[in-house]
Amino acid sequence: MTLRHLKSLEERQNLLEKDQRVELKNIRKVLIDREEDIHCENLIGAISLPVGIAGPLELKGENVKNETVYIPLATTEGALVASVSRGCKAITLSGGALVNAHRVGTTRGPVFYTGSIRKSEEFYQWLKRNEKQLTKVAESTSSHLSFKKYDIRTVGSYAFIRFYFDTQDAMGMNMATIASEKMVDYISEKTGFQCLSLAGNFDVDKKAAWMNFINNRGFKVWAEVVISARIVKEVLKTTLGKIFDVWLAKCMIGSAMSGSLGFNAHFANVVAAFFAATGQDLAHVVEGSLGITTMKVLPSEDLYISIYLPAVMLGTVGGGTGLKTQEEARSITGVNTSIELAEVVGGAVLAGELSLLASLSEGSLAKAHKKLGR
Amino acid sequence: MTLRHLKSLEERQNLLEKDQRVELKNIRKVLIDREEDIHCENLIGAISLPVGIAGPLELKGENVKNETVYIPLATTEGALVASVSRGCKAITLSGGALVNAHRVGTTRGPVFYTGSIRKSEEFYQWLKRNEKQLTKVAESTSSHLSFKKYDIRTVGSYAFIRFYFDTQDAMGMNMATIASEKMVDYISEKTGFQCLSLAGNFDVDKKAAWMNFINNRGFKVWAEVVISARIVKEVLKTTLGKIFDVWLAKCMIGSAMSGSLGFNAHFANVVAAFFAATGQDLAHVVEGSLGITTMKVLPSEDLYISIYLPAVMLGTVGGGTGLKTQEEARSITGVNTSIELAEVVGGAVLAGELSLLASLSEGSLAKAHKKLGR
Amino acid sequence: MTLRHLKSLEERQNLLEKDQRVELKNIRKVLIDREEDIHCENLIGAISLPVGIAGPLELKGENVKNETVYIPLATTEGALVASVSRGCKAITLSGGALVNAHRVGTTRGPVFYTGSIRKSEEFYQWLKRNEKQLTKVAESTSSHLSFKKYDIRTVGSYAFIRFYFDTQDAMGMNMATIASEKMVDYISEKTGFQCLSLAGNFDVDKKAAWMNFINNRGFKVWAEVVISARIVKEVLKTTLGKIFDVWLAKCMIGSAMSGSLGFNAHFANVVAAFFAATGQDLAHVVEGSLGITTMKVLPSEDLYISIYLPAVMLGTVGGGTGLKTQEEARSITGVNTSIELAEVVGGAVLAGELSLLASLSEGSLAKAHKKLGR
Amino acid sequence: MTLRHLKSLEERQNLLEKDQRVELKNIRKVLIDREEDIHCENLIGAISLPVGIAGPLELKGENVKNETVYIPLATTEGALVASVSRGCKAITLSGGALVNAHRVGTTRGPVFYTGSIRKSEEFYQWLKRNEKQLTKVAESTSSHLSFKKYDIRTVGSYAFIRFYFDTQDAMGMNMATIASEKMVDYISEKTGFQCLSLAGNFDVDKKAAWMNFINNRGFKVWAEVVISARIVKEVLKTTLGKIFDVWLAKCMIGSAMSGSLGFNAHFANVVAAFFAATGQDLAHVVEGSLGITTMKVLPSEDLYISIYLPAVMLGTVGGGTGLKTQEEARSITGVNTSIELAEVVGGAVLAGELSLLASLSEGSLAKAHKKLGR
Repeated sequence: MTLRHLKSLEERQNLLEKDQRVELKNIRKVLIDREEDIHCENLIGAISLPVGIAGPLELKGENVKNETVYIPLATTEGALVASVSRGCKAITLSGGALVNAHRVGTTRGPVFYTGSIRKSEEFYQWLKRNEKQLTKVAESTSSHLSFKKYDIRTVGSYAFIRFYFDTQDAMGMNMATIASEKMVDYISEKTGFQCLSLAGNFDVDKKAAWMNFINNRGFKVWAEVVISARIVKEVLKTTLGKIFDVWLAKCMIGSAMSGSLGFNAHFANVVAAFFAATGQDLAHVVEGSLGITTMKVLPSEDLYISIYLPAVMLGTVGGGTGLKTQEEARSITGVNTSIELAEVVGGAVLAGELSLLASLSEGSLAKAHKKLGR
Repeated sequence: MTLRHLKSLEERQNLLEKDQRVELKNIRKVLIDREEDIHCENLIGAISLPVGIAGPLELKGENVKNETVYIPLATTEGALVASVSRGCKAITLSGGALVNAHRVGTTRGPVFYTGSIRKSEEFYQWLKRNEKQLTKVAESTSSHLSFKKYDIRTVGSYAFIRFYFDTQDAMGMNMATIASEKMVDYISEKTGFQCLSLAGNFDVDKKAAWMNFINNRGFKVWAEVVISARIVKEVLKTTLGKIFDVWLAKCMIGSAMSGSLGFNAHFANVVAAFFAATGQDLAHVVEGSLGITTMKVLPSEDLYISIYLPAVMLGTVGGGTGLKTQEEARSITGVNTSIELAEVVGGAVLAGELSLLASLSEGSLAKAHKKLGR
Repeated sequence: MTLRHLKSLEERQNLLEKDQRVELKNIRKVLIDREEDIHCENLIGAISLPVGIAGPLELKGENVKNETVYIPLATTEGALVASVSRGCKAITLSGGALVNAHRVGTTRGPVFYTGSIRKSEEFYQWLKRNEKQLTKVAESTSSHLSFKKYDIRTVGSYAFIRFYFDTQDAMGMNMATIASEKMVDYISEKTGFQCLSLAGNFDVDKKAAWMNFINNRGFKVWAEVVISARIVKEVLKTTLGKIFDVWLAKCMIGSAMSGSLGFNAHFANVVAAFFAATGQDLAHVVEGSLGITTMKVLPSEDLYISIYLPAVMLGTVGGGTGLKTQEEARSITGVNTSIELAEVVGGAVLAGELSLLASLSEGSLAKAHKKLGR
Repeated sequence: MTLRHLKSLEERQNLLEKDQRVELKNIRKVLIDREEDIHCENLIGAISLPVGIAGPLELKGENVKNETVYIPLATTEGALVASVSRGCKAITLSGGALVNAHRVGTTRGPVFYTGSIRKSEEFYQWLKRNEKQLTKVAESTSSHLSFKKYDIRTVGSYAFIRFYFDTQDAMGMNMATIASEKMVDYISEKTGFQCLSLAGNFDVDKKAAWMNFINNRGFKVWAEVVISARIVKEVLKTTLGKIFDVWLAKCMIGSAMSGSLGFNAHFANVVAAFFAATGQDLAHVVEGSLGITTMKVLPSEDLYISIYLPAVMLGTVGGGTGLKTQEEARSITGVNTSIELAEVVGGAVLAGELSLLASLSEGSLAKAHKKLGR
């Protein structure tokens, strides 16, 4: 008798407790959504992941217009929420963060086997000629999906495609997969070429990859703020020179030295905690944490800081976003659309960068003090 | 009045409900750990993240000796648990997966400013001469930490160090940070060189980076299994040729074409779900999902498949691992040490790869059937 | 008195011989072009770089139609020419290589300073609206240049552009730079934004970069051939299984393990020798050697091998291509246009891969023989 | 009748002229070395590649002690020599460049097939235990070679090794290959494991790869100089602020945005021209052009600039270094050992970076002037 054949939640819980000699009383208790609302097979319960709140954070976005938001962060890393909150304070005292998000589109990327470079060329040309028809095929699968564009690269007897879809407020991997499958069927039927795999790692889903960094995925998001020297000193407890030096050494040169796709201090911390809180797919933290923090000491002796997230996959409907606690957590942000949520992530990540880089620079100050004080 | 000044959980919850006009009844309800046991500031509650169980999975590890484990996966992606379970079935029917894990060590990487390449050279030589003394300094900070080794690279007036620590069953970033700070103080005092930042992105923490792939971080983990053609057909519903072709096109060539650090099908899905379930730091999914899947059709007409995870950061004590539900979830695996848990991750990831690659290859079979059936 | 102030070649040669106490008699002798035909300041002579010939090689290209070409290779690496020649023989006996080249365009990439993400957005939109006008500006600079397209990415207060130009049979960096400068002036004048640098490493010229791999530069080139098992055995002295195994272990998995942008055996050797012989810019070997070799054992028990070069920068006019010996070397190939030359490179690289991979696989065979023979 | 069967140089030249209807009179003339001194099969002559001289350049190296060197550059790119010369002038007026080189070692990297992760583990342990014996085996192959260390990574049933050798003043790939072959034979004999390929792309030879960047290859080389604001203005025609801004935008952020392994302005130009002039293997330009340029405006209002080359493969004996013109070209530098030559490359690359970055920054100045002047 195995788990797979047990139809009821309770049967599975009981079997596991008995077989593995474990107690699941908390895991049982924490499950509050109805099983039919949950996309998770062999369900046995749920884990309770603590949520803290950072903010308030003033945002002036292209989509989130002049709003004060709070940032729910599900995390167990001490100091993270406090640190982001400190960043929010410095930003809000400085008049708020500018944020912006562009929808690039959810991608799915089949790979076809053509048999030769000559056939690959034909395939390339066929696709070019049939984009309109493919759009129709794609958009016949859902009224919530529209086809945006595609990239194609052929290598030997393989043709790698990357379809981009607008999936409205859903993160949309399922929709994109269904549309891609229909397109793939159509292409195979019309061209006779075989699709080896509906997902050929040219998508490239849930992977750190330069394709996602350079040609983007989901949303690309920017945020920035100008902080006065006074606020740098009073709120962030550091100086313009020190924070700039840390940024340059760590986010630029250090990242170059380690072959990193993250030229930043800790995007992943904020993205992971925000994604967990708001019901996003946690594997999308991988591409969601790519990106660059930039800094500049302005002639006015203010500090300019910006963040750029090239590949943010998220949504406000579908997946885990509709679970009770995740929906409540998102409601705290006050926004409802995916593009707004992307801008909120941008603001939160900016706050996180500002605060951690300040801490790191101030740490060295503290040390210098100790040393000089002897 | 802001969140930061409210001392009690209830005050924060009330303020947020009132200010943001939201309802947090579920977030309130799901919190079951005591506030003092949680490392999360401005706590307002918790989210409930569904957990499914994959398995049973037979493992023959260097550390997990001949055990049948279950894999708790916290996810909201439909089909993930079922898919991993199918992989577990194929593996277990094949006699189980070989797994192995090496502890490379938790890394922390300060960056020093030396002022010139000549001074960088001196710094380099000093560090070489003083490794023993630095070991003492590091190990004075905790009886649970031992210093393993360091890497150093100098570029211009910067010296980037990467300390590796054995932190026993803790993931250990906090311990590593405390030890590094002490070492940094010692180095600064003895050499006069200034530490710009305790973390200089040569660690390189929570970032997709070739340093983590090539020189490893946390644990490196391997898993493999040989599957007979019969099981490939009956359980995985595909053929050796098809699954191999998909692997080659997707995991190798497709990943190369997209500049990926993930030469695999979907490590991130399994790692993220397992990390969430067992209370790991979710930002470590970033380096945890790096790695390679390999395949080979053996002369015996069996399928060999292996996975390699170069940078797995996890623990069984500390961080979120001690939260009630997370501890229960880990107990389901039946293992208690971090190196064993790393091997379990290896087995789970192997199961996930096997099943998804089979699905993708069988998808194209299904299509061919449809087409041929017309 | 320094070199810079000496106007005549002989004065410089004399000064150097005297000052550095060296003898330059051969360097003097080898210079055969007129100084006014040479783009090299402070000229003192020339080096003599040996040229060997590989071939004949049968090519069936999209541009080089059914021709037998010879491959001039300037090299001092023993065995290289012989090895490429052996590859040519195997290919030609198999009916020749299919080759294909697409012109992507020579790129130049200025970086502008906008001051903020809001301004970056304006800049982005302005560029979109003014593409036609920019095309006119670009094309006013030369009748040999046409503007193809551009990529743009903004990060914080920076906007990175990448212009693509068709520069006909010239490699065209100079033309592209002149056109870009005019465009940059126009953009600055119209938008008021300052160009920080005419070349902002988003070009990205003479650098190994995923941008060049993924979005291509110059020409992208493919070549392939199907080799029968008999020719694999008789000419290449190996077996299908062995050569495939080496390819998979080395070009795929080994390259992944080392974080390489070259998923191939030795593109760089052939590209460097061919570029040197035909007067190309040797620094373009860097992006010219990026790329992938693929292999497949066909159901017919033949070996399929292909190469893909994503970023080949070369020309048949301009730069060093008009020097006397380089022009003669190119004439040996029998082709005159840059796109044809790109296809010849493709064929040569394919021959090189085939032969080296065969050697490596046969080496291990030799060893096995020795061992078994004891 | 084909080239391969023609024994004499003249026969080959004649055949080619007749068959391909080309004239090779210059290629014939330029060949000045004796055929037996040249490692190039099917030799038909040589090309004449112009050489210009940059310098004088004052160097204060760990190996090149306080010397004034000239830099021979074989190039056909207009302005390159002049630009490097301008950089040399600025450096020399500033008291010269500090340079330093570390020998990391020439690498060769076989890949073994072990069959399973358990066997890979055994292999790993065997290698650890037998390092001394392997050293003996390696060093028995040449009195000019010593074994330095090895890296090993296992993935599934593959074990990738990377041997590092000190090959004295030779670049040493041949020596390293011969030693590796002997070691591989020894390993195979003792362990029974099969070597799939003597070179498994973990070397990783002539490829842009993070392994070469992070763990180095050949020599790692540094150079730096401090330039006063006055010299920046008078010689480089720019200002500290402008050159710093260009460096940051281009070499750091632009390189990050394009997924580059070159965080520099144009290492490849100088390395390629210097390698060609001095008889190095031109394919080594690929890893030789990896690296980072750093800059800092010092509190003293001077400009600090440094370059770091992580993987310089070169020599002063063997390969093409002994050809007549190449030997003369090297003699111009005044140095004889490979480590000194590596330091000279470092100085030359530094000069190139300084001058180009100044030009780019001054270009924008020129434009601003034009604009402001209207």
